[in-house]
Amino acid sequence: MTYQLHYWPTIQGRGEFVRLALEAAGADYVDVAREPSGKGGGGAALGRLLRDSGNPRAAFAPPFLVDGDIVVGQTAAILLYLGPRLGLAGIGETDGLWTHQLQLTIADAVAEAHDTHHPISTNAYYEDQREAAKARAKDFCDARIPKFLDWFERVLTLNPSGDLHLVGDSLTYADLSLFQLVAGLRYAFPKAAARALANAPAVAKLHANIARRQRVHDYLQSPRRIPFNEEGIFRHYPELDC
Amino acid sequence: MTYQLHYWPTIQGRGEFVRLALEAAGADYVDVAREPSGKGGGGAALGRLLRDSGNPRAAFAPPFLVDGDIVVGQTAAILLYLGPRLGLAGIGETDGLWTHQLQLTIADAVAEAHDTHHPISTNAYYEDQREAAKARAKDFCDARIPKFLDWFERVLTLNPSGDLHLVGDSLTYADLSLFQLVAGLRYAFPKAAARALANAPAVAKLHANIARRQRVHDYLQSPRRIPFNEEGIFRHYPELDC
Repeated sequence: MTYQLHYWPTIQGRGEFVRLALEAAGADYVDVAREPSGKGGGGAALGRLLRDSGNPRAAFAPPFLVDGDIVVGQTAAILLYLGPRLGLAGIGETDGLWTHQLQLTIADAVAEAHDTHHPISTNAYYEDQREAAKARAKDFCDARIPKFLDWFERVLTLNPSGDLHLVGDSLTYADLSLFQLVAGLRYAFPKAAARALANAPAVAKLHANIARRQRVHDYLQSPRRIPFNEEGIFRHYPELDC
Repeated sequence: MTYQLHYWPTIQGRGEFVRLALEAAGADYVDVAREPSGKGGGGAALGRLLRDSGNPRAAFAPPFLVDGDIVVGQTAAILLYLGPRLGLAGIGETDGLWTHQLQLTIADAVAEAHDTHHPISTNAYYEDQREAAKARAKDFCDARIPKFLDWFERVLTLNPSGDLHLVGDSLTYADLSLFQLVAGLRYAFPKAAARALANAPAVAKLHANIARRQRVHDYLQSPRRIPFNEEGIFRHYPELDC
């Protein structure tokens, strides 16, 4: 069965956490909105699907995943669904739950990263909320990035199976998502991320190890990996880094 | 087995979504931080638990739940764990996943409600970010409350089993959480919530129905229900309602 991922076609955004899990597992999937419009691609087609009155369980927002009769939205719920199917959720209920808890904490960090450039409204331009953005980004760089990365460092160093993975001794979607969080922070806030990562060496090592995995490496080199840009969640505005 | 809920003892906050599920199911639980300090109660004891180096899976932040050997943090992950055990997650994997997806969307709305009074930093006082708060709250009232409630209205009215529940024809933790979201919005933003709820009659009806359920009603009348206050997530600052 081919998974269908539906997400905005020009950004990494939240869809990237799903893309990484599918790619790292070598799963068969189509990134639907990036197909030609004749094959259902494009942002307009994506928008129509969200408003499809024939689907009583249409998601609030992209991404959403279609797997046969199953349609699931919300990044963390998609990964909860895919995790056991792709072998990326640890072993048993306890590890599966812990993997999900880690993912939800990553999602909190991602939402805060987004709000550094849109602290007032997602319906207004960055340029129209730049002063508030500077203040929010200062707090994010000074307090929140270190707090999040310190916690993940603690999880890695206290893992009884070693500090190479967040959960046990094998790859989970939480590892992949932490890789993406670090990649995003390094892109958007190179100075603040470098400072925080100097105090979180196991997190930095995990990022490097994930990037070296064959399938992830191949994906990152391919045109399927959309470059970071200033339409996505992680945006590099030099005035917000500190 | 008695569940142990660990959460700040003086606010509803995110812990309230867990309290409501436990109460509505008539589960046996202890709200640990509200116990006397001799029994492990108080905010200081809660803080120590978070930093307990003997627990390699300590949560990033409260709430967290202890059930024997299981310790789980992140509100939505706690509900994912409790849902099937309390009979509050629908039937089968598909409904369980949909219930969780709804919960994650409620969590997004809750995080945005929080950020209306703290758009710049959770480490600074509201009074020191009031101007940004006014701007963020205006967008939340004008655009986001209606967008979220419209979506839940759509989910209810398109539910093939009728508009009394979000998932199928029985109570889930998503119903309880939507009740709490509506209660919080009405407390914090009475004018904006009334306006949005006038266009979401099924959501308003669900809120009223949940409040009338015997166990929920008894809980809401009891001293176990902490009143809304200006330390929690939903705060009534008249200047932020519009």
